[in-house]
Amino acid sequence: MSEVYAARRTRLRERCNAGGSASALVSRPANVRYLAGAAPPGAVLLLGRTEDLLVCTGPPGDRPWDGRPDESLRVRTLPDAPAATASATAGDPAVAATGLAVTQGADSLAVEEHHLTAARHRALSSVAPHLRLADLGCAVEQLRVVKDEEEISWLRIGAEIADQALGELLESILVGRTERHLALELERRLVDHGADGPAFVTSVATGPHSGRRGHRPTDRRVEEGDFLSVCLGATYRGYRCEIGRTFVIGTSPADWQIELYDLVFAAQRAGREALVPGVACRDVDRAARQVLDSAGYEEALPPLTGHGVGLEIDEDPQLAPASMGKLDACVPVTVEPGVHLPGRGGVRIDDTLVVRPEADGGPELLTITTKELLAL
Amino acid sequence: MSEVYAARRTRLRERCNAGGSASALVSRPANVRYLAGAAPPGAVLLLGRTEDLLVCTGPPGDRPWDGRPDESLRVRTLPDAPAATASATAGDPAVAATGLAVTQGADSLAVEEHHLTAARHRALSSVAPHLRLADLGCAVEQLRVVKDEEEISWLRIGAEIADQALGELLESILVGRTERHLALELERRLVDHGADGPAFVTSVATGPHSGRRGHRPTDRRVEEGDFLSVCLGATYRGYRCEIGRTFVIGTSPADWQIELYDLVFAAQRAGREALVPGVACRDVDRAARQVLDSAGYEEALPPLTGHGVGLEIDEDPQLAPASMGKLDACVPVTVEPGVHLPGRGGVRIDDTLVVRPEADGGPELLTITTKELLAL
Repeated sequence: MSEVYAARRTRLRERCNAGGSASALVSRPANVRYLAGAAPPGAVLLLGRTEDLLVCTGPPGDRPWDGRPDESLRVRTLPDAPAATASATAGDPAVAATGLAVTQGADSLAVEEHHLTAARHRALSSVAPHLRLADLGCAVEQLRVVKDEEEISWLRIGAEIADQALGELLESILVGRTERHLALELERRLVDHGADGPAFVTSVATGPHSGRRGHRPTDRRVEEGDFLSVCLGATYRGYRCEIGRTFVIGTSPADWQIELYDLVFAAQRAGREALVPGVACRDVDRAARQVLDSAGYEEALPPLTGHGVGLEIDEDPQLAPASMGKLDACVPVTVEPGVHLPGRGGVRIDDTLVVRPEADGGPELLTITTKELLAL
Repeated sequence: MSEVYAARRTRLRERCNAGGSASALVSRPANVRYLAGAAPPGAVLLLGRTEDLLVCTGPPGDRPWDGRPDESLRVRTLPDAPAATASATAGDPAVAATGLAVTQGADSLAVEEHHLTAARHRALSSVAPHLRLADLGCAVEQLRVVKDEEEISWLRIGAEIADQALGELLESILVGRTERHLALELERRLVDHGADGPAFVTSVATGPHSGRRGHRPTDRRVEEGDFLSVCLGATYRGYRCEIGRTFVIGTSPADWQIELYDLVFAAQRAGREALVPGVACRDVDRAARQVLDSAGYEEALPPLTGHGVGLEIDEDPQLAPASMGKLDACVPVTVEPGVHLPGRGGVRIDDTLVVRPEADGGPELLTITTKELLAL
């Protein structure tokens, strides 16, 4: 595994060198983990001139799913910071790493300005006044977009776990239970089946809440005749997937429910079928969106219909009307159009898929729970 | 309630004016909630020259525990940001609020440099090049240290909920269950009893893990003869409390377990008894620490023995050897000394208390679960 992380750091180093910095300081946790194999809380990675260092405030944990620091990397553990000392920066790994960059002879250091706070950025300047601080921008995030087969295998396992948790929930009695309890039960089942934990806050939305993206569960109880939308995901080895389904509670869905479901299903299928290597992100979005638009729902639509997943649940690329860029093979994305009608509820259908060439069978569906409209 | 929030904003405004800024931009979520009554995701609060504005990316949620924006405050909801547009700052409430500050004639704006990223700070400078950006520092955090009786009542309810959840767990069979499952069950029980959610990641530590501060649960199972340390807390109306207890599994604790427990108990009691208005924070820490020091455990001690709680679980003040400042009445703090012996385990005992004058009965213990050494 060591070679994987070393190769990623080499790619980043090439980008930095091209940008005029021989050294880089990576602080965003998902980026640290991508390049170092683990990201203990607060740790930063220094891509130095002479060697790379993982600078931590404590020893790495012993939970297998938190990863292990790449063995080719030197780990420097700072002594416990005395709390509330005169200097707020004592014990800050970013400050320590900046000092180490200077020791290695760096004259320029690229930092993640979109992650470091303004106060920490200022602290780096003051410990190393002769060091030029450049902006690394989202260079690591860009490296993370295309996944290798091991990363995809972890996403695949996470998707299986989410499918299992969801499948079990559907076999239980739902009427009368609250959104919050159903969400907690799903999260427990994710862990039962081997997830590191939930990939994000599980969303369970009933009745008028159904179909809302990112709805946070309330104490509303499931009632006969409700739409029930569920969105959950597992984290496995740090990789996060997502599945969303909408069900109807009771024996016979109303006509408007069937119509709305069929429409969102058609939109979601159009989005999935648009996933071919080389397609523009905005064209995938448009494929899904125009199905809903043409049925008169343009007002009810979310700003995006999908996004990348990986070490974070909401990564590049975005599938949205103004997105730039194209999808490459081996990019995992969600396709998740939905319609929410205020006061009535709505439908969301959400899959995680990996873009694959047609010769390899086309897009690989990771979340395989049925998308028929189930009446529960 | 409106008067409470308006009064807090008035106090902050006085501090800003004293610092030379007539306007302030508050972005840290707990600070926004403290001053505005609610903090929808991404929202910022502008303390403007002519009026105060809560700038949001979407409508406030409808979950009662997320709070409601103070009615005396104008709420400005930005249109959905088109994802991945040319400008990364379109739709950033901080950028929009900065523009509104300029419209109100501000020439200086105090911002939270310890919360805003360097990239956002730069974006504010570029939308308002003639505006002087000052540092608000931790002014709001300082206002939050002393609580009013309503805030304390919410902490008290949260502590009752945590006591209930813990009490129920102790009645169940523990041997053979994993740390992760016990932690999930505690979190479910917190919600069952009316918590908004857990106050922080519930820690369950068995055997050699016991006694570790902030131990994150693993798949290790509870065994006969283990120490079992549990640390949990409830969030109620946004306010977070904390309780930690250590138990022994099996009928008869070993001698070393009884000795270590008695020692940590004595240290924790010394810390609790030191909580009088006007005491130096470091003296509370020393009271607890010296009990452990004098027994020869100075190496095994954590960097702090307690901290404030409130809208965040780890607030000022810190109870640590180098802490400055004194404790006022109506400051809720934890007292949580512990000893962890590598390879063997250890003991932590953690309460949330409110500093009260002796005339009012002395420190108010919010977490009332017994601190006898229970053998389960």
